[in-house]
Amino acid sequence: MTMNEASARVGVDRLRGFIRAALCRLGMPDDDASTAAALMAEADLQGSDGHGIIRMPQYARRSRAGGLNLHPAIRVLQERPGMALIDGDNGMGHVVMTRAAELAIAKARVAGMAWVGVRMSNHAGPASLYARKPLVHDMIGLYFAVGNANHLPPWGGIETLLSTNPIAVAIPARRNTPIVLDMATTVAAYGKVKAKAQRGEMMPEGWMIDRQGNALTDPRRADEGFLLPIGGYKGYGLALIVGLLAGTLNDAAMGKNVIDFNRDDTSATNTGQAIVAIDIAAFGDPDAFKDRVDNLIDDLRGSRRMPNVDRIWLPGEQSSARRLENSKAGIPIPASLRQNLDALADDLRIERLN
Amino acid sequence: MTMNEASARVGVDRLRGFIRAALCRLGMPDDDASTAAALMAEADLQGSDGHGIIRMPQYARRSRAGGLNLHPAIRVLQERPGMALIDGDNGMGHVVMTRAAELAIAKARVAGMAWVGVRMSNHAGPASLYARKPLVHDMIGLYFAVGNANHLPPWGGIETLLSTNPIAVAIPARRNTPIVLDMATTVAAYGKVKAKAQRGEMMPEGWMIDRQGNALTDPRRADEGFLLPIGGYKGYGLALIVGLLAGTLNDAAMGKNVIDFNRDDTSATNTGQAIVAIDIAAFGDPDAFKDRVDNLIDDLRGSRRMPNVDRIWLPGEQSSARRLENSKAGIPIPASLRQNLDALADDLRIERLN
Repeated sequence: MTMNEASARVGVDRLRGFIRAALCRLGMPDDDASTAAALMAEADLQGSDGHGIIRMPQYARRSRAGGLNLHPAIRVLQERPGMALIDGDNGMGHVVMTRAAELAIAKARVAGMAWVGVRMSNHAGPASLYARKPLVHDMIGLYFAVGNANHLPPWGGIETLLSTNPIAVAIPARRNTPIVLDMATTVAAYGKVKAKAQRGEMMPEGWMIDRQGNALTDPRRADEGFLLPIGGYKGYGLALIVGLLAGTLNDAAMGKNVIDFNRDDTSATNTGQAIVAIDIAAFGDPDAFKDRVDNLIDDLRGSRRMPNVDRIWLPGEQSSARRLENSKAGIPIPASLRQNLDALADDLRIERLN
Repeated sequence: MTMNEASARVGVDRLRGFIRAALCRLGMPDDDASTAAALMAEADLQGSDGHGIIRMPQYARRSRAGGLNLHPAIRVLQERPGMALIDGDNGMGHVVMTRAAELAIAKARVAGMAWVGVRMSNHAGPASLYARKPLVHDMIGLYFAVGNANHLPPWGGIETLLSTNPIAVAIPARRNTPIVLDMATTVAAYGKVKAKAQRGEMMPEGWMIDRQGNALTDPRRADEGFLLPIGGYKGYGLALIVGLLAGTLNDAAMGKNVIDFNRDDTSATNTGQAIVAIDIAAFGDPDAFKDRVDNLIDDLRGSRRMPNVDRIWLPGEQSSARRLENSKAGIPIPASLRQNLDALADDLRIERLN
């Protein structure tokens, strides 16, 4: 968590068990609840704590309001050797995307690579979870998604018609932890703005601008402006392209059709996502590839640094370190989150997280 | 051209004919010379003038120095329904990538999508040329490449181990020109820095930093610093991932193995590129898809703007406008470029561009 407050650590097994119990009590079938709970706990484990158990109260609210289908009939709508299009039937994103990732991996094993698009899905947590899935099969994973709230106008505009549509790519190494890029197409994620506001801090220039195009640095005024895309018009272009590939191609929500899932608990979000699996063995020997990745990592990590730079990081390296730390020491649960989870537990009549 | 100097316009047919004659005289077979000349002229037509006929003297120099194979035996090394890996045998990038794009399109027609990687290729001009190739087949095109000179250190580092590895994506519309994103993963391309130096102008902050990490705004001091990646560490991550997908996966040059093709005319660059074709018909009716793209374009273009913003552009819209203008009026050839081309013509004993 980004806030400075007391937090106690909880083992990942207990975290997973709590989420599973909550989802089952809401009415989700056991298998799906296990799948979703494992992925949500994995998010907390790797430090993506804005996408883990903290979302459970929101998922519960949406589920009870009828905005989430706990018994989806997930169907393959279109299929060819190198692709498939899946209808998630408004199921939980974690469950729909797990099915999509499994299909992409199975198809890539034969076709060498496969692209599986999804419509009628929902928020699925951090992008890296799905990009990472092909790794254990010696495959490269790519993941694209349409975000679940629009915070970004087109370049020069003031209407938020685009989301911070994320891109994730995971590439295996042999001696090193995998390279995992997981990035929003904006300079700062919206959660970082909220955290600054809670701490009473100002934002650096470059995170947001106001409706006149001037720098906006007071996070309490966030409603008066917009997130800035990375590289200006380039990030706008990237957010648009990701939305077209993960949303429009699948006939999922994009642009003005995106539902703000923080404000609307009942409408189907028709979230669009896409996963690509590339079988490294189709290109050559996987171990030889991973050795080349390792050598590149060594070259980058061992290269000369600027003054006051302690080390050069590879994408995903900090998440891997966090994962190791949290596996041993438990996952930090801040007091305010625990209060929310206790209230949810009491409400659902399940055991509190302890 | 970015320089303020006299320029006369030349019809695209004459431009293409000149390049073709030069390549033939250097020893390239007729068919390949036609292919490469058409693509180089196309680059100038769409305003990518840093990648068009201006490169002809450099290609000629490399060809004569033995650094470019004019009679490559381009081979498919690996193949599955959804992918292929091609060895370009150190042929001209335009020729190798044309073969790769054709194969990707043919495979995508069956598999729904296909990824074709390339090794032992060379500089192939603007990325958008290849991303655009699937468009006429109602397909989406994606293109990744390892740049031909390293200008980017890892985030926090001072050794330029990465290039400005470009990404291009082309998506068709029906009423509108296609959406075509073509971007380097740095804030400014290196050519823009050179242009600022030539005009005696300072660069804005954010383009480059020096070895201490401070803003570098004097383009005459460019050698003392580095280009900045878009979104800081995010752009570093993107450049790295593009290099891994287009270079390392194909066993092409990446990292310290990249040859600076401006300084070395003899070593094979082993350039890595990748093209992806996605058959829209595999996902659903292509016209329905293109209508959704058109509606999105209308929404973005028609949305409210910041003060002093005349219009909202879509990626690729300005290139399409430039293409139309240059098709009618001819392509501007600045006096300094004409001098270089005249010298080349005299040297090769072909007719001057007129």
